[in-house]
Amino acid sequence: SRELFVLTYGALVAQLCKDYEKDEDVNACLDRMGYSIGIRLIDDFLARSAVKKCRSYSETADMIAQVAFKMYLGVTPSVSCTSAAGNEFSLILDKNPLVDFVEELPAERASLCYCNLLCGVIRGALEMVHLAAEVTFLQDRLKGDAATEIGITFLRRPEDRKHRRN
Amino acid sequence: SRELFVLTYGALVAQLCKDYEKDEDVNACLDRMGYSIGIRLIDDFLARSAVKKCRSYSETADMIAQVAFKMYLGVTPSVSCTSAAGNEFSLILDKNPLVDFVEELPAERASLCYCNLLCGVIRGALEMVHLAAEVTFLQDRLKGDAATEIGITFLRRPEDRKHRRN
Repeated sequence: SRELFVLTYGALVAQLCKDYEKDEDVNACLDRMGYSIGIRLIDDFLARSAVKKCRSYSETADMIAQVAFKMYLGVTPSVSCTSAAGNEFSLILDKNPLVDFVEELPAERASLCYCNLLCGVIRGALEMVHLAAEVTFLQDRLKGDAATEIGITFLRRPEDRKHRRN
Repeated sequence: SRELFVLTYGALVAQLCKDYEKDEDVNACLDRMGYSIGIRLIDDFLARSAVKKCRSYSETADMIAQVAFKMYLGVTPSVSCTSAAGNEFSLILDKNPLVDFVEELPAERASLCYCNLLCGVIRGALEMVHLAAEVTFLQDRLKGDAATEIGITFLRRPEDRKHRRN
């Protein structure tokens, strides 16, 4: 049951909003927390999902959406590649369970990325499988956008890293 | 999957430990947060569990242990009545998933009730079904106790309340 998690997450965000005046600081803190969670959660994910090694960024993005999101949040975002270079992806969430109990952001918190923890989690987990990535919210329904969209930009291609290692 | 929840809860407790020097203040804050969660979670619980009205404190304690804990934490504490008056109960947790990633409390946090949010959740949820209760940790494995035990003391008997209403 996700409700207790979702409400607890809300308590965490509310506490950070008490602690930090600037939305940017709350966002950064959520991202840092998420990163710490991601680097621990990856072991659980690999053990329980029993997935095979991904051979491309595209496979990795699909894995995050179809296996990880499903496993931890019970939803499956759709994935699209958004760069010709093939290293940028968007996860589009039709339904975002983390905001189930949030009606709207208060006016004075207009720049809050309420779910920014998720970006940190993805970034941390990817780093543990040796993939550097930038992960940010590109759109957020909570802010009045048409969709909720998480952007993942993989920073180095595996080929490059292989070369460097040799 | 509970792991993301459990790690997020850990991030919340860690943040409160940054915010408050005294364990008592962290404990009180977790309890308050839990209370706010409980008064919202009860609707979800009643809707999804489709349980009938409890007719006694004993039934209520069983419901918390067997239905609510199972639903939200995936574990079923054992219940025992601990007062002759029949208004005090202990929930004994053999396994506490909330501490899955906690090895031990740091020495300077010896009085921290790490899971105190749960007490607040129970208290808040009970209040919404018109049951006043005190809920506290009586024992905690994290503190070296033999078991993890949550004490629930119901503060007024339904009979009294009926009398008062008439």
